[in-house]
Amino acid sequence: MSNSDPSIFELGESEALKRAIAHFKPGSHTLIPSGDDAAVIRSGGRYVVTTDTMVQDRDFLLKFSSPENLGYKAVATNLSDVVAMGAKPTSLVVALVVPKTTSVSFLENFARGLQSGIDELFPGCEVVGGDLASGTEIVIAVTAHGELDQEPVLRSGAKVGDLVVVAGTLGKAAAGLSLLLAPDHTLAASYPELVEVQLAPKPPLALGLELAGIANSMLDLSDGLSTDAARIAKASDVSIRLNSSALIGYEAVLELAAQSMTARGFEAAERDWVLHGGEDHSFLATVPAGTLLPKGCKVIGEVVSKSAEPVYLDDTPLIAKGWDSISS
Amino acid sequence: MSNSDPSIFELGESEALKRAIAHFKPGSHTLIPSGDDAAVIRSGGRYVVTTDTMVQDRDFLLKFSSPENLGYKAVATNLSDVVAMGAKPTSLVVALVVPKTTSVSFLENFARGLQSGIDELFPGCEVVGGDLASGTEIVIAVTAHGELDQEPVLRSGAKVGDLVVVAGTLGKAAAGLSLLLAPDHTLAASYPELVEVQLAPKPPLALGLELAGIANSMLDLSDGLSTDAARIAKASDVSIRLNSSALIGYEAVLELAAQSMTARGFEAAERDWVLHGGEDHSFLATVPAGTLLPKGCKVIGEVVSKSAEPVYLDDTPLIAKGWDSISS
Repeated sequence: MSNSDPSIFELGESEALKRAIAHFKPGSHTLIPSGDDAAVIRSGGRYVVTTDTMVQDRDFLLKFSSPENLGYKAVATNLSDVVAMGAKPTSLVVALVVPKTTSVSFLENFARGLQSGIDELFPGCEVVGGDLASGTEIVIAVTAHGELDQEPVLRSGAKVGDLVVVAGTLGKAAAGLSLLLAPDHTLAASYPELVEVQLAPKPPLALGLELAGIANSMLDLSDGLSTDAARIAKASDVSIRLNSSALIGYEAVLELAAQSMTARGFEAAERDWVLHGGEDHSFLATVPAGTLLPKGCKVIGEVVSKSAEPVYLDDTPLIAKGWDSISS
Repeated sequence: MSNSDPSIFELGESEALKRAIAHFKPGSHTLIPSGDDAAVIRSGGRYVVTTDTMVQDRDFLLKFSSPENLGYKAVATNLSDVVAMGAKPTSLVVALVVPKTTSVSFLENFARGLQSGIDELFPGCEVVGGDLASGTEIVIAVTAHGELDQEPVLRSGAKVGDLVVVAGTLGKAAAGLSLLLAPDHTLAASYPELVEVQLAPKPPLALGLELAGIANSMLDLSDGLSTDAARIAKASDVSIRLNSSALIGYEAVLELAAQSMTARGFEAAERDWVLHGGEDHSFLATVPAGTLLPKGCKVIGEVVSKSAEPVYLDDTPLIAKGWDSISS
C-alpha cells in the first residue's frame, strides 16, 4: 500500500473518519449533527425509520462494485423504502464494518458515493451519524428516516378495482447482475446502462412521492415483481392480475441483452428478469381507477377479488420466485 | 444440529424471523410497527438518533457472551447514548448479520436479550424494525431513537466552576473483561457481578435522564473516564480536574478482584480500571455548582479554566488511554 493511500489502521480511525465525513453536506432537517452521542433531527410529529444491510460476497462483490457504487446503492435502497411509505427522506445513519487494512481512499470514496446518491436522488437529505468498526468482511448497515406529510401508505391498503402501477425500471437490475456474473466479460461491457442499475440503482424518488400521494398501497420493488406483488395481495387480502401486454415495454429494452447472453450459451430470458428480478428499487403501487397518474408511471394490472393465488399474469397464476441477490 | 434447534438456513429466514419477533413487546411510541417498508414513530417535533455496532471477535467473544447478553448489551450501549443527549428512548432498529448455520434458538435468545434489556433499562421503548442478513461473522448494528422534552445536552456545554458528576459504575466493565480474559477461569467465576457489567451493562437510564435535566454537558462513558472526560474538556474549551479521593469508592469495590489477579501473576490495578476502563456506559456530566443532585450521582471533580492538558487527576495531567474492548 502506498503512502499516498494509507490504510485506516495506518492513518488512525479518527483521522480516517474525518476525511470521510468531509464529503458530507449539511441537510435541512438536522438540528445537531453527528459528533455528539446522537444527532438531533427535526420532525413534524411523526417520522418513518427503516434499515437495510449489505454484506460483502452476499449482496455485493468488490470485483464489480466500486466504493462509490456501494455508498450510492446503500442510499438508494434505504431511501426507496422511506418513499414507499409516503415519507420524505430526511436523514441517514451509516454503520460500516471494514477490515483494518482497508484504504482510507475506500472510505472516502464510499462517503462520496453516499453523498452523490443523496445529491442525485433526494437532495437535502443528510448523513447525520455513523459508526466505523473493524471486521473480516465489509458490512454496510444503513438506517434511514423520513418525515410524513400524509398518512403512511401501507402494503395492506389495496382495494379491488385499483390499478396496479409501476414507477421506475423493471428487470434492469437483474439483467445487469446476470451480465456481470456471466464468465464472458464482454457482455457486461456491452450493456453499461443495465449494469449501472444493478450497481447504483436510481429509484425515481420524487415520482415515488407523487405516486404515494394518490396510492392506496405501495412498496419498493426490492425482491422482484412476482414476490412484491404477492406481498401487497396477501397484506390487502386481494389478488393482483398483471397484464402481460403491459410488460412488453419493460421486456423490449432487455431483449438484446438476453439474446446476447443466450447466443453465448448462457441462460437468460427478459421476461424472467421483468417478472422475478429484484433490486430495481422502483415503486409498485395500487391507485383507485380513474386517478390521474403522474407522468412516468405505468399501469401494469389491476386489483381483483381474492382468488386461489395472490398474483396472476393474465389468467395464469404467477408463482413468486424469491430474489436472493448474488448469493442465490 | 438437532431437529429441535434448526439453523436459520434449515427453517428459512422468514419463519426464523417470525419466531424472533414474537419476543418483542409493543411500545408506546409506534404508530406503524415493523413489517412494511418502514416503521412510523410518533415524535414531539424533534428526535435523536444514534447508532452503534458490535462485531464478533472484536467487540465480543461467543465463548463469553450468550446471545441474551449480546441483545441486552446492544440495547444498553445504544440507549445510554440516547439518554446522554437528554432524550427518552423510544425505539430501536436492529441489523443483524449471522452465518446461515446459526441456530434459530440463537436468534430467539438474542431477541429475548433485546427485550429484557428494554424491560429492565427503559420499559416502553420498542424494537420497531430490523434486517437479518448472512455473513461469515456476527455483526450487530443497532440504531436507537429518543424524544427530547428538553434542550439536548451536548459535550460542549461544560462551564468553568461546574461539578463533574458520574451516575453508574466506573471500572467494573473493564475489571470484568480482565477477569474473563485471564487464562485462569476461576477468576471470572469468583466475581460474577463484575463479569455481568462487562457482558450485560445496566446503565442507570432513569437516573441519567434526571441528571440530563440539570447538566450543562454530558456523555455516556463508553471509552473510559480519562478519554471521555477529555472529550468534554476539548469540546467545551475547558479543563477538568478529577479528585483522586472521590474515586476511592469506585476503586474499593474492585480491589479484591485486582488482588486476586495479581496473586495469580496477571497484571491488574483497580485504579487503571476506574480511570481508563470503558464500556460501563455510565454517565459523565457537568452541572452548575450548588445544584441539588439526584440520589445516586457522585461528584468526582470540577471544571476549571483551560490549561495545558484537558484532564488532571488532582494536579497531575491524566493522559487518556484509548479503550479498544477485546481487540486491544
